Amino acid sequence: MTTSLALRRLDAADPDFPRHLDYLLSWESVSDEAVNRRVLDILQAVRERGDAAVVEFTRRFDNVEAGSMAELILPRERLELALTRISPEQREALEKAAGRVRLYHERQKQDSWTYTEADGTVLGQQITPLDRAGLYVPGGKAAYPSSVLMNAIPAKVAGVAEVVMVVPTPRGELNELVLAAACVAGVDRVFTIGGAQAVAALAYGTESVPQVDKIVGPGNIYVATAKRHVFGQVGIDMIAGPSEILVVCDGQSDPDWIAMDLFSQAEHDEDAQSILVSPDADFLERVAESIARLLPTMERAEIIRTSLEGRGALIRVTDLEQAIAVANRIAPEHLELSVADPQRWLPKIRHAGAIFMGRYTAEALGDYCAGPNHVLPTSGTARFSSPLGVYDFQKRSSIIFCSAAGASELGETASVLARGESLTAHARSAEYRIKA
Amino acid sequence: MTTSLALRRLDAADPDFPRHLDYLLSWESVSDEAVNRRVLDILQAVRERGDAAVVEFTRRFDNVEAGSMAELILPRERLELALTRISPEQREALEKAAGRVRLYHERQKQDSWTYTEADGTVLGQQITPLDRAGLYVPGGKAAYPSSVLMNAIPAKVAGVAEVVMVVPTPRGELNELVLAAACVAGVDRVFTIGGAQAVAALAYGTESVPQVDKIVGPGNIYVATAKRHVFGQVGIDMIAGPSEILVVCDGQSDPDWIAMDLFSQAEHDEDAQSILVSPDADFLERVAESIARLLPTMERAEIIRTSLEGRGALIRVTDLEQAIAVANRIAPEHLELSVADPQRWLPKIRHAGAIFMGRYTAEALGDYCAGPNHVLPTSGTARFSSPLGVYDFQKRSSIIFCSAAGASELGETASVLARGESLTAHARSAEYRIKA
Repeated sequence: MTTSLALRRLDAADPDFPRHLDYLLSWESVSDEAVNRRVLDILQAVRERGDAAVVEFTRRFDNVEAGSMAELILPRERLELALTRISPEQREALEKAAGRVRLYHERQKQDSWTYTEADGTVLGQQITPLDRAGLYVPGGKAAYPSSVLMNAIPAKVAGVAEVVMVVPTPRGELNELVLAAACVAGVDRVFTIGGAQAVAALAYGTESVPQVDKIVGPGNIYVATAKRHVFGQVGIDMIAGPSEILVVCDGQSDPDWIAMDLFSQAEHDEDAQSILVSPDADFLERVAESIARLLPTMERAEIIRTSLEGRGALIRVTDLEQAIAVANRIAPEHLELSVADPQRWLPKIRHAGAIFMGRYTAEALGDYCAGPNHVLPTSGTARFSSPLGVYDFQKRSSIIFCSAAGASELGETASVLARGESLTAHARSAEYRIKA
Repeated sequence: MTTSLALRRLDAADPDFPRHLDYLLSWESVSDEAVNRRVLDILQAVRERGDAAVVEFTRRFDNVEAGSMAELILPRERLELALTRISPEQREALEKAAGRVRLYHERQKQDSWTYTEADGTVLGQQITPLDRAGLYVPGGKAAYPSSVLMNAIPAKVAGVAEVVMVVPTPRGELNELVLAAACVAGVDRVFTIGGAQAVAALAYGTESVPQVDKIVGPGNIYVATAKRHVFGQVGIDMIAGPSEILVVCDGQSDPDWIAMDLFSQAEHDEDAQSILVSPDADFLERVAESIARLLPTMERAEIIRTSLEGRGALIRVTDLEQAIAVANRIAPEHLELSVADPQRWLPKIRHAGAIFMGRYTAEALGDYCAGPNHVLPTSGTARFSSPLGVYDFQKRSSIIFCSAAGASELGETASVLARGESLTAHARSAEYRIKA
């Protein structure tokens, strides 16, 4: 059985291709003034009234019958209980994934460094973990245990003393897999709160919720808007756009595999973007056939169809060189290089969140258990940003320790430049240290 | 001659001290709705009308008689000319400072890394520079050549191919020192534009101004607001608050030196914050005397007085242990450890932008030429952020290259977790790669 499906086809040889590509990639988050105002009200209420406001909003928005904040706290034992309630197979998979993610992220840990100059002056950077990180985990249908692993493990590897998780429980529903993942990842405290009120509680602190230094994790428009507003008060990770995959294929992979890889991105939501680029026009059509044949067998067929028809594309290019140029223009969140010799093309990739090399590396392996993080820059932001990592939970302090001789010599230079900027106190402060 | 000066004195032994300290540190940037609206209008105009809008705003706001964008471009030769127009002493100081800043930042450069697992699977990160960076430099009285060095050099060390500088020239005034610094730092192109219109031009690109990937550098409220709005479209550095210094002293340094170090922060502007902490009550009073005696000799006496009276403080503590606790609570931009054995205290510093160790290391040396960056996290954001560095101009792409055996094994784990999240396309994409 096949279903007709309106798939967009582009050809890089078309003089209008750059314009078509720009249009295909255009996506802007809606900035909703009504949402903005509601979020600001919630932030202010939590800032002023703390726990009381959080409990109120949680009752109203999540339909949770909580009388006080004490009822919205999950002790560590509850997380351990969850680990016994999931299947042994799930527990093993969670622990295997966590182990691999931990091993990979250990390699990202950075150490303090210094060097000493001839005159005894010491320069360097001292690298320290954040004191406390907040992890937002969505409730309901988008509750992903893998996301708990990917956000909490880098923080713990960095040495963050306390990871505080918030997760809403609409109508009191707890997701055992999410709690089990929190247990495996080493989350220290869990509050069953969500929305802008949870972000506010983490950013400002309340009687019960400790103030954190950085808030990470995905969320809906209220959560994203709240994070934007508290940025500066605390650190935040990127505000994520819809998920995307770009598959570059030489035409020699199994078309069903490529179709399913495109589906695996498209099934996230209607705004997700799946694009295939190949120099082989016949192959593009074979993938289109696989898509049409496999689509009706998918649980999330309607989401996949909407996503593929609205934002997907099959792009024909002259050769792989041009395919890589298209990839660099897109700066995709996920880039699959389903080609014979991916190592050859790797050095030419300038912008991508994660690069999945060769025919065996399905993007889904990276989502769950290969080791690298699945929190990646979207919407072309890979041009200037990176996967979530241990480095997001460490920060640096410059170290400057001048010897008397070093201060004297540097003082001469500083004095000239400070006077050039008319900053006389700077100049005189430096001049005091110049030897007579 | 002494002048009476109302300096705030706090004592950490006072039960109300935490509250007083909170109040002293409280500072929030004013979010001005009128500014916000004007900035949004400017951003939209530049986005829609490009060069024409930029020229219009530049004529209106900067009083510059430009007929077209071509008149707002400075060629590289103009920067070289500036280098011949400053004094030989200034040129030498600029070059010495640039050399030291470059050497220090070379140590921050990060390299791609991979490791290979037993089954042949390769994991790692590819590290690449941004393609293009934009550097905002304020015009008029706050035009600081040192800021050009500190922002441009890390970008060039990272390997950024093109550094584009924008600097407004109110009434056509060019600052030769700023242009000379741009020449020494290796800036590639300069446009004499400023304000929100310059930020918009860099973020969206115009016919003449190339779109950049990240915008760094200080600016007024219009520039800061514009940067906040274009964040996401491009990367930005921190939105800086007022400059601050915290001096921790054991009471054995020259009180005049400490007074001048406090001045060197206070002279920046009326909102700047200078705080001295010491266990030696007599010493605090001796510094107060130095302040009163030296203040009338300062060019910027009125700014310093306003800053010290409004936001400064002398804090008495029981011992240095408590002084360090206060420092960690404040998470200062600049921390001066003017004590006998600063190495002893260094490991206890959890949060600070830069740490100036020992009696000889005046903060001013770090501002100009010691080597470390002078762009540092303010307003307590050192709790979660770092000095500007080479790492701000590099980004990472995860590398995942599974062997057939690796993909088969990982596929089992991914399948279990994906089905636990009801993401069937993810599961099936992974399962295709499991060996029969």
